[in-house]
Amino acid sequence: MTFIRNAWYVAGWDSEVDRAPLARTICGTPMMFYRKLDRTVVAMRDACPHRMLPLSMGIREDDSIRCRYHGLRLGPDGVAEEMPLKSDAVNTRICVETFAVAERHRFVWVWVGEKALADPALIPDLWPCSAEGWAFDGGYYHIACDYRLLIDNLMDLTHETHVHSGSIGQPELMEAPIDTRVEGDKVFVTRWMPGVDAPPFWRGALKKPGPVDRWQICEFLAPSAVIIDVGVAPVGAGATVEQHDQGVRGFVVDVMTPESETVSHYFWGMARSFDVDDVGFTARFKRQQSGVFAEDVEILEAQQQAILANPDLRLNAYNIDQGGVRARQIIARKIREQAPVQEAAE
Amino acid sequence: MTFIRNAWYVAGWDSEVDRAPLARTICGTPMMFYRKLDRTVVAMRDACPHRMLPLSMGIREDDSIRCRYHGLRLGPDGVAEEMPLKSDAVNTRICVETFAVAERHRFVWVWVGEKALADPALIPDLWPCSAEGWAFDGGYYHIACDYRLLIDNLMDLTHETHVHSGSIGQPELMEAPIDTRVEGDKVFVTRWMPGVDAPPFWRGALKKPGPVDRWQICEFLAPSAVIIDVGVAPVGAGATVEQHDQGVRGFVVDVMTPESETVSHYFWGMARSFDVDDVGFTARFKRQQSGVFAEDVEILEAQQQAILANPDLRLNAYNIDQGGVRARQIIARKIREQAPVQEAAE
Amino acid sequence: MTFIRNAWYVAGWDSEVDRAPLARTICGTPMMFYRKLDRTVVAMRDACPHRMLPLSMGIREDDSIRCRYHGLRLGPDGVAEEMPLKSDAVNTRICVETFAVAERHRFVWVWVGEKALADPALIPDLWPCSAEGWAFDGGYYHIACDYRLLIDNLMDLTHETHVHSGSIGQPELMEAPIDTRVEGDKVFVTRWMPGVDAPPFWRGALKKPGPVDRWQICEFLAPSAVIIDVGVAPVGAGATVEQHDQGVRGFVVDVMTPESETVSHYFWGMARSFDVDDVGFTARFKRQQSGVFAEDVEILEAQQQAILANPDLRLNAYNIDQGGVRARQIIARKIREQAPVQEAAE
Repeated sequence: MTFIRNAWYVAGWDSEVDRAPLARTICGTPMMFYRKLDRTVVAMRDACPHRMLPLSMGIREDDSIRCRYHGLRLGPDGVAEEMPLKSDAVNTRICVETFAVAERHRFVWVWVGEKALADPALIPDLWPCSAEGWAFDGGYYHIACDYRLLIDNLMDLTHETHVHSGSIGQPELMEAPIDTRVEGDKVFVTRWMPGVDAPPFWRGALKKPGPVDRWQICEFLAPSAVIIDVGVAPVGAGATVEQHDQGVRGFVVDVMTPESETVSHYFWGMARSFDVDDVGFTARFKRQQSGVFAEDVEILEAQQQAILANPDLRLNAYNIDQGGVRARQIIARKIREQAPVQEAAE
Repeated sequence: MTFIRNAWYVAGWDSEVDRAPLARTICGTPMMFYRKLDRTVVAMRDACPHRMLPLSMGIREDDSIRCRYHGLRLGPDGVAEEMPLKSDAVNTRICVETFAVAERHRFVWVWVGEKALADPALIPDLWPCSAEGWAFDGGYYHIACDYRLLIDNLMDLTHETHVHSGSIGQPELMEAPIDTRVEGDKVFVTRWMPGVDAPPFWRGALKKPGPVDRWQICEFLAPSAVIIDVGVAPVGAGATVEQHDQGVRGFVVDVMTPESETVSHYFWGMARSFDVDDVGFTARFKRQQSGVFAEDVEILEAQQQAILANPDLRLNAYNIDQGGVRARQIIARKIREQAPVQEAAE
Repeated sequence: MTFIRNAWYVAGWDSEVDRAPLARTICGTPMMFYRKLDRTVVAMRDACPHRMLPLSMGIREDDSIRCRYHGLRLGPDGVAEEMPLKSDAVNTRICVETFAVAERHRFVWVWVGEKALADPALIPDLWPCSAEGWAFDGGYYHIACDYRLLIDNLMDLTHETHVHSGSIGQPELMEAPIDTRVEGDKVFVTRWMPGVDAPPFWRGALKKPGPVDRWQICEFLAPSAVIIDVGVAPVGAGATVEQHDQGVRGFVVDVMTPESETVSHYFWGMARSFDVDDVGFTARFKRQQSGVFAEDVEILEAQQQAILANPDLRLNAYNIDQGGVRARQIIARKIREQAPVQEAAE
């Protein structure tokens, strides 16, 4: 298995989950999601306990779902409320599997594994997506690759030069040294560029001339998020690697959810603490980011196909790949930890 | 294996099989069918005994078939009549597998298993399709589901309320009690509704006002047909569950033939004993029925996909499913009975 | 395995391989090909040794290739020349697999197996494709069948009557006796037709009236080429089976390269020693030949599908199939010979 099961995964943007059911397969399990009248989210196995028709094809009635095949009605707790024949006594042992679900940082999260362990405190801390004084928006790609290839991609920004040569690629970035560091279930790849000329995007954001300190700090959060702290501050304003709100700052946000071993859901966006009320800026940036990430999608799907077509070869890691390597080590360790004892003993 | 092999299956409508070969895979076996000059039907394995090109791509010459690759000519008995090189002596040990075939009730039937057991008396008795004083017509769907899901569907008409809510669904049907009964290789699900108001379709067929007795009697015939006796008779005319030709009566006819474990041929139609010469009625009804069954096709294919996507789950049966459950029990028993002794002993 | 690995296979027409990389999977191995500035051809595994992105998506720089993902640059010998971070020291143990390649007879050839055994002297002798005084042109089909079905097809021209009945089929050809003969790794199927009337194509080529001696000599060359010596000479001019340049002569050239067990690359053409400077004739003939071979593609793909759909059946061989049978025996023997000792010992 290539993914951790006892973990919170993003099932969708808050805006994607509404009163009508949304079907999405997470870690190999078909699920469906809808909002109750109080707007909290219900997550169920997407198969009627009667004859397995996807419940996402059903009709939501108040906070319940009625299967479109024979009309079995299930409450938001997954328990039968009405049999196909209304005259039949309700058998409350009939139920569909439900999943722990939470809404935080603009996303709907679902816990795939053992429900008793689903502690909302374990939701990855994507604070820039929901903090006061920050604006956040983004989009979604359904991508035919292992989610770990996305993590590799995002933890190593040297690919920008080649994959994004026509958009955001900047060869000078390659010259700055990087520092890779593991802290618990997090990995940080830090690039600090003191006293440089600001590139056009950041110059426009800063709205001031003069040399800047610039940073790119990639942070992997298990099971599968990467947020990248980016920005510039005027030289002498006091920005440091640890603390840098003196200029303009944003986070590139990427959350990957495995659908299967070779298909993933990719949620991406940008959070920023400058010009937060400029909705035009938000919309323009989202359109640009969508185009840049479409370039990654093309590369990553080709990479996945090549991995399948060359089963005798292995991925190799160089210096630049240390961020992805460390992230994969954390994932592998957590998979081992949650394995049944007998398996772990092998 | 999910289907009985020693059984007659519908290979096609009588109108589908003509002088030009028709290719159709039945129970996993590629077959081809054509009519001889005397209009009887030939059924052969759809692979030339020489280099396996489908014989259905060949050219029929009189009652024989000539392969389009090298010209091997086979008679309607499957035996070689001419070699690829005409000058070569004919080797009559060269032959293609042929299948027992029969034409009855407007369908062409083929016996898939042991040829010696192919007794035409075993053809399911779809008498309304061919009886004097009855009109019968219908159509064909190629559907990506296990044929037994179709049987389940047809043996339980409660699904009409939800699947066909926009067409023939009638919630009041759900209130009438049903009776499920097994007789040999047949299963009957009977719903008798005495003294009710006739729905519009039956009122128009009856052409009389006043309360009616109404019935729906689903009959499963092994290996895989379901015919549904439907109609109304004026109250007091003497109609009973056993005998009910006092009003207007029809049969919804459904015959399912497995192509593989997850793909089926679905032949459907309507036989009726009223207005039998009204060809406009026949055509209009067929068009309507085609639309209704297309609603089932959508549901059944989604159900099949859900079964494959949720391998840890099982279909469950409630009261309403007893007809399908009994039909599946008969199928399973007949599969066991025809299994070789050593397999059965396991 | 159904193909010989220690052998030269055609990877492409000389005109297909240029400065930009060409991707083609040969015997199950993804490869890519490009020309250096000196026009010699480089063949590499189509997967970057770093993260496996197809190198065919990369950018050729001088004689090297730069991966489009992280920019690893590999020389034409497959060895790393520049790391993704230019500042990183080059690790020359990083390299991609390269393949022995040669250009001959208008084709680019690649040796799939053990590189040390790649002797250009083993390239099949398709001399009419490159001999002085001969003109040669042709095309390419990607065809979904086992390459051996193509060999069977070409070593038995009786199929022309049926497959090409609308184009080149000539029933009279079937009446001439054929002679099948094995010589080392070659198989010859010879049809000599003395004193016959020339068919229209050959009459037009000969530009003379009167009876002719006519021939068709199919030659299989391991691992997978078939060239067919065809033509006519005036009766009495002295043409023999061994020597027949007295009239007009051509070679139908067919080279098959396995992509997988059920997909092949098919390179076909016509070489001729008459009207060699008539480029209009060359173009018209190529267009006609393309249409004829498209008829074979349809048949062969249907045959492959039938083989997969009828796993209980076997291909059978008659007299006319001896050419293909002998060719397959040579292929099977060479596969056995190159198998590791332990496998061969089983």
